[in-house]
Amino acid sequence: MSQAAFLAVDWGTTNLRAWTVDGGGAPLAHREFPLGVSRLKPGEAAAVFRDTVRPALGAEALPALIAGMVGSNLGWKEVPYVDCPADAQALADRILWIAGEQPLVGIVPGLRGQGLGGPDVMRGEETQLIGWLAQDPARLRGRHLICHPGTHAKWVLTDAGRIERFITAMTGELFAVLTEHSVLGGRDGDAEGAGFDLGLAAAGDGSALAARLFTARARVVGGGGLEPAQVRTYLSGLLIGADVAATPRLLDVPAGTPVALVGDGRLCAQYRRAFAHAGVPVEIHSGEAAVLAGLHVLFQIQSRKGGPP
Amino acid sequence: MSQAAFLAVDWGTTNLRAWTVDGGGAPLAHREFPLGVSRLKPGEAAAVFRDTVRPALGAEALPALIAGMVGSNLGWKEVPYVDCPADAQALADRILWIAGEQPLVGIVPGLRGQGLGGPDVMRGEETQLIGWLAQDPARLRGRHLICHPGTHAKWVLTDAGRIERFITAMTGELFAVLTEHSVLGGRDGDAEGAGFDLGLAAAGDGSALAARLFTARARVVGGGGLEPAQVRTYLSGLLIGADVAATPRLLDVPAGTPVALVGDGRLCAQYRRAFAHAGVPVEIHSGEAAVLAGLHVLFQIQSRKGGPP
Repeated sequence: MSQAAFLAVDWGTTNLRAWTVDGGGAPLAHREFPLGVSRLKPGEAAAVFRDTVRPALGAEALPALIAGMVGSNLGWKEVPYVDCPADAQALADRILWIAGEQPLVGIVPGLRGQGLGGPDVMRGEETQLIGWLAQDPARLRGRHLICHPGTHAKWVLTDAGRIERFITAMTGELFAVLTEHSVLGGRDGDAEGAGFDLGLAAAGDGSALAARLFTARARVVGGGGLEPAQVRTYLSGLLIGADVAATPRLLDVPAGTPVALVGDGRLCAQYRRAFAHAGVPVEIHSGEAAVLAGLHVLFQIQSRKGGPP
Repeated sequence: MSQAAFLAVDWGTTNLRAWTVDGGGAPLAHREFPLGVSRLKPGEAAAVFRDTVRPALGAEALPALIAGMVGSNLGWKEVPYVDCPADAQALADRILWIAGEQPLVGIVPGLRGQGLGGPDVMRGEETQLIGWLAQDPARLRGRHLICHPGTHAKWVLTDAGRIERFITAMTGELFAVLTEHSVLGGRDGDAEGAGFDLGLAAAGDGSALAARLFTARARVVGGGGLEPAQVRTYLSGLLIGADVAATPRLLDVPAGTPVALVGDGRLCAQYRRAFAHAGVPVEIHSGEAAVLAGLHVLFQIQSRKGGPP
């Protein structure tokens, strides 16, 4: 068995995922904890990491590199954003090494770019993107459009291995607040997902979303062929369909530009269905593999320099 | 003092508003109750009306005409929708008179029309529209575009005194669920409403709403010139601006078509600000006066026939 080189951590809003990784970037052990930064008390991150995360992986003696919301003002220590365009080197250079931590703990900075009429931001996805770019040398050449679906979906343009621009769409969060807190409701029970395809059709060009969303109610109470049990999948199709139809245009990419979907498998499959409806070719890539690759690349750049300060 | 001719009632989801009205349609007494249908137990409407509403207005002996969600399956008795196009006569003919009630109680039917790829529905606004049309003979000629702002904003086309088509945009409800339940939050404190104008500008053409909404967060955490205290008014401007920019197009009206705003004064003023930003002329009309006029018109049509069955 290879020797672990470092402890790789994706510490997000809801969960914390950690891997010991060997010198070649291969994962050795993996643990997941319901210890996202939204669940921590102020100032608790350091102790949680030392007392819970390290021992669970037998990683008391390993340097650690962490990406995600842990670098926000709600996390361990706020790490200033790096501005786009940015590549792996720019991010590695700005890793924040926590003062006084032994073994070393570094936090990857988030990215800030020119979004829709103002700055847009990400924390965590930049590491997945760096990893995805590093997984295939062809991706370090030319321009690519990547979609990272989720609570706050990220639409990203890369060029020559740099992250150039991105736009965030709060598609997943809209789904959550509308199904949990609005008049639309949304029961489960559409096993075949027929409602999803009805929702994709209702998404149209993605304009006038407030009007399109109300169709989820009007078609139920007005006899429009939508069953109450289909409302939830209908809303999912409508919101994802509107995202796919409207957001890439904001990045000025030509219609039909192929898209790399990087992220959670179930979400990526839903987006693939929406892209298929729109006639856009896609490839799906594992978000977990991408974040591991990204942390490995960033850690290696630091090591080549002779290690962190 | 004139003698009351009937008891006019607007019984919505949240509140119940009632007026005694003289033979000329003028209100004599008015009371409002926090007794909307969402606050009633099943089967409670009849007793609430008889034991609370009628005595409060000294209206124990008057026939009553009621509009609003009270005609839904959550209200007193479900009244089938009337289909568009519909005028005052069509709605009056389909008033549901509650069997066995003495004095008489009638409920105005809601309207169903061809909305966005399927049926759309309203309950209550049809009575305001009939009243608004009746308030000026010029409105019974030609085509008019009316916007009724609210939780579920209604955009309506009339032609020759008939309600032809309408589309509902859940603009107000999106504002409520996003400010109460999303990561965007939204504190009060923007007395000058500067955030509202920033939001109007961010609304653009109303496309890609899930992306535009996230700017309310990105501009705060990314240093984009938006203060936390402005998020609430920014979201209001963004959502209303997107509604104004995108929804009328779905009704195939030419850009810049003048709009009659009918409804709550504060909401109408917010929409007027958005229309001014878009360069569209508007007139504001009281929703309360319109619903009273509508109930009067519908009650009169029934009376001319010799009264309800």
